Amino acid sequence: MRAVDIIRKKRDGGKLTKNELSFFIDGYLRNEVPDYQMSSFLMAVYFSGMNDEETVALTEVMLSSGVVLDLKDIKSIKIGKHSTGGVGDKVSIILAPVVAAAGIKVPKISGRGLGHTGGTIDKLASIPGLRTNIPLSKFRENLETIGFSIMEQTEEMAPADKELYALRDATATIESISLVASSIMSKKLSEGTDGLVLDVKTGSGAFMKNLEDARKLAQLMVKIGNSEGVRTVALITDMNEPLGKAVGNSLEIKECILGLRGRCEPDLMEIVLTLSAWMLYLADRISEDMETQMLNGHLLKRYKDEVVGYINNGNALKKFIEFVDAQHGNPEAVFNLSLLPSAKHIKPVKAPRDGFITRLDAWAVGQASVLLGAGRETMVDDIDHAAGIILNRKSGDHVTEGDAIAVLHTNDDSRIKEAEEIFLSGVEIGDRAPAPRKLIREIVF
Amino acid sequence: MRAVDIIRKKRDGGKLTKNELSFFIDGYLRNEVPDYQMSSFLMAVYFSGMNDEETVALTEVMLSSGVVLDLKDIKSIKIGKHSTGGVGDKVSIILAPVVAAAGIKVPKISGRGLGHTGGTIDKLASIPGLRTNIPLSKFRENLETIGFSIMEQTEEMAPADKELYALRDATATIESISLVASSIMSKKLSEGTDGLVLDVKTGSGAFMKNLEDARKLAQLMVKIGNSEGVRTVALITDMNEPLGKAVGNSLEIKECILGLRGRCEPDLMEIVLTLSAWMLYLADRISEDMETQMLNGHLLKRYKDEVVGYINNGNALKKFIEFVDAQHGNPEAVFNLSLLPSAKHIKPVKAPRDGFITRLDAWAVGQASVLLGAGRETMVDDIDHAAGIILNRKSGDHVTEGDAIAVLHTNDDSRIKEAEEIFLSGVEIGDRAPAPRKLIREIVF
Repeated sequence: MRAVDIIRKKRDGGKLTKNELSFFIDGYLRNEVPDYQMSSFLMAVYFSGMNDEETVALTEVMLSSGVVLDLKDIKSIKIGKHSTGGVGDKVSIILAPVVAAAGIKVPKISGRGLGHTGGTIDKLASIPGLRTNIPLSKFRENLETIGFSIMEQTEEMAPADKELYALRDATATIESISLVASSIMSKKLSEGTDGLVLDVKTGSGAFMKNLEDARKLAQLMVKIGNSEGVRTVALITDMNEPLGKAVGNSLEIKECILGLRGRCEPDLMEIVLTLSAWMLYLADRISEDMETQMLNGHLLKRYKDEVVGYINNGNALKKFIEFVDAQHGNPEAVFNLSLLPSAKHIKPVKAPRDGFITRLDAWAVGQASVLLGAGRETMVDDIDHAAGIILNRKSGDHVTEGDAIAVLHTNDDSRIKEAEEIFLSGVEIGDRAPAPRKLIREIVF
Repeated sequence: MRAVDIIRKKRDGGKLTKNELSFFIDGYLRNEVPDYQMSSFLMAVYFSGMNDEETVALTEVMLSSGVVLDLKDIKSIKIGKHSTGGVGDKVSIILAPVVAAAGIKVPKISGRGLGHTGGTIDKLASIPGLRTNIPLSKFRENLETIGFSIMEQTEEMAPADKELYALRDATATIESISLVASSIMSKKLSEGTDGLVLDVKTGSGAFMKNLEDARKLAQLMVKIGNSEGVRTVALITDMNEPLGKAVGNSLEIKECILGLRGRCEPDLMEIVLTLSAWMLYLADRISEDMETQMLNGHLLKRYKDEVVGYINNGNALKKFIEFVDAQHGNPEAVFNLSLLPSAKHIKPVKAPRDGFITRLDAWAVGQASVLLGAGRETMVDDIDHAAGIILNRKSGDHVTEGDAIAVLHTNDDSRIKEAEEIFLSGVEIGDRAPAPRKLIREIVF
């Protein structure tokens, strides 16, 4: 077998066997297949695609390149959650303690942010002292005692994915549904959970701009998960506008803490509740007709009510504080938000006219936030944890000319003007209120 | 400008500017754009293609990456020749001394063989002592005094092409017409000639398997040449069957010497005469209606007759001997062919039945020859100069069962059986003689 023949076969639209994929991926990890062959292979996959069988096989190969967390000795059921990423998407940080409060284990391995979307690891890093590069033993311990833990992806877990991601980013081969699906699923399956809920975002601020692509990705990932014996459900949710009111790491942590205290923005709350409810459902699931009850809304409502209970009784907040403490963060910060990083420069963005906000584009807000220092343009960039944007108004809200629609936060005001321009390019104000957003677009299982 | 954005633009079918191409190619040569970005770019070009303007711009960028031979001080007119490569294609070795005998300078920079096609440099290397890695000053001197010189491509000439070729070979991105055209033309234009005759081969043993692709490549190269002020003509010629009777380096040199002595195989002779005639025409060309006369055959015949004259009067052979001598080869070998390498193992391939040979597949013969040691599978492989195949019969010839259709030559008999099988897989024998091959398929200018 030769790497170049595998590239050519894929280039010419051939279907690769698991053997061929294994030769290529494992060879890459052993440095026998060089970067330049891998990147042309990735581009060939981008153009020629992969069928479901190839994508499942690729996921298995990537998965077997690393360690699967063996969590068998942890008795309780374990449910994973993953989002394809968006702007202001801090759902995991509220959801994990909530679901843990329900007695379900949530092992969460997360990544750093890249481009206009944030990353859970970066957000958590704004809590003074908090560490996500903890050893696996600590991760497991937190999972047992607290019920959830969030750690950074390590070299050991699906190393093929880690190396491939950096290469795909540099070679414009990120946007291949098969590669995205196998990358996500090889990581999520390595968490060794019993079930998995996926939040597939669609819209301007998402990786998948249109519903059709999001649906394809969701279907593919659900198929992979189920093929590997992990019951998987995907929710396709709207990402045309940021979730909640905060965008940027420290600002989002503050919003999460307020959320855990019961003061959650409605759109954010809706996503947290629905995803959590599906996680509870997956943990309980004993028969197929439960699915019907979830879909007709009756059972879903019961689970949502249960989740609201864990927020209202303070159990979810308690889990979060335990988590911060166990991962070396300062739990004081949860009560005294002024201990979290805050920015030197603060600039309101004023409404250019009276009217209703009809668009508050997630991509534009995300880009503005990156310019303020909240995100990375490349994997090696530093980020400013205090930087970001607070959205005072969201779509549907009425504004009067001169009102501060949003407030920009940064420690480096050199690009603040540019950030404001990009932000405003994403704002539209009209005479009539727009139809309300449909947050949950589809459910795939 | 970022390399990844240029890759994405091409991936999405965008048209690249000369500036963008220059950023990418020059950055690659300065090691600022890594191999892995280049290879995914090449694959994106493979799929998205390039239009004529982009291909001309790419050629100019690659050309300007190296030195253009400045041959202005050489008074006589200079005409280049290039073949896209085939099996048994030793045309240049006969043609260059013939055209030099006509008083035209033929500066020839050639490559090594790769895969099933041979390379002029490898063929010449079978002449004891002969060197093709001569300094430019020597190349120029031979050109002035003898009228032709053949040297290996150096690092200085179109370095982008040299690096790119190796990368394309390893990443299955050889087969892109734009990349092929710009690669060939950047090298040929760097020879600094006044005119250029291209032999674009088509058929099983050629790079371009079908006439349509060959035509596209020919048209593109002619367009590039003329855009750069070098009058260019392309002949599309048949490569479904090897040219002449010898395949393999030393064996082909022997055939060339016999050819220069006036004992040339008819198919080889036809290609040599036609290409040489077009080179003489380009050197003389003073008006457009000359082209009409070339095409209606009258002028072509006059030039062909002139060429035959240089063979018959021994001038071409004399030029060849001067060349061998000037480039440190042993001129004795031209008179005493036993001084050329010969193989230890010789095995006839017998006709499996009576009949007419209806197919003698160039690709199969080329592959068999590589197995015998005559070619390289990778750029770093050594070759056996004595290895190869003598075709006793060609298509249209009658054979009797058990006749030796061909004789395999090698110093390493370990793969001789495999070579014989591949060879025979390319042979078809039928009851009726096939229609004669049309050697010159089309002329593009």
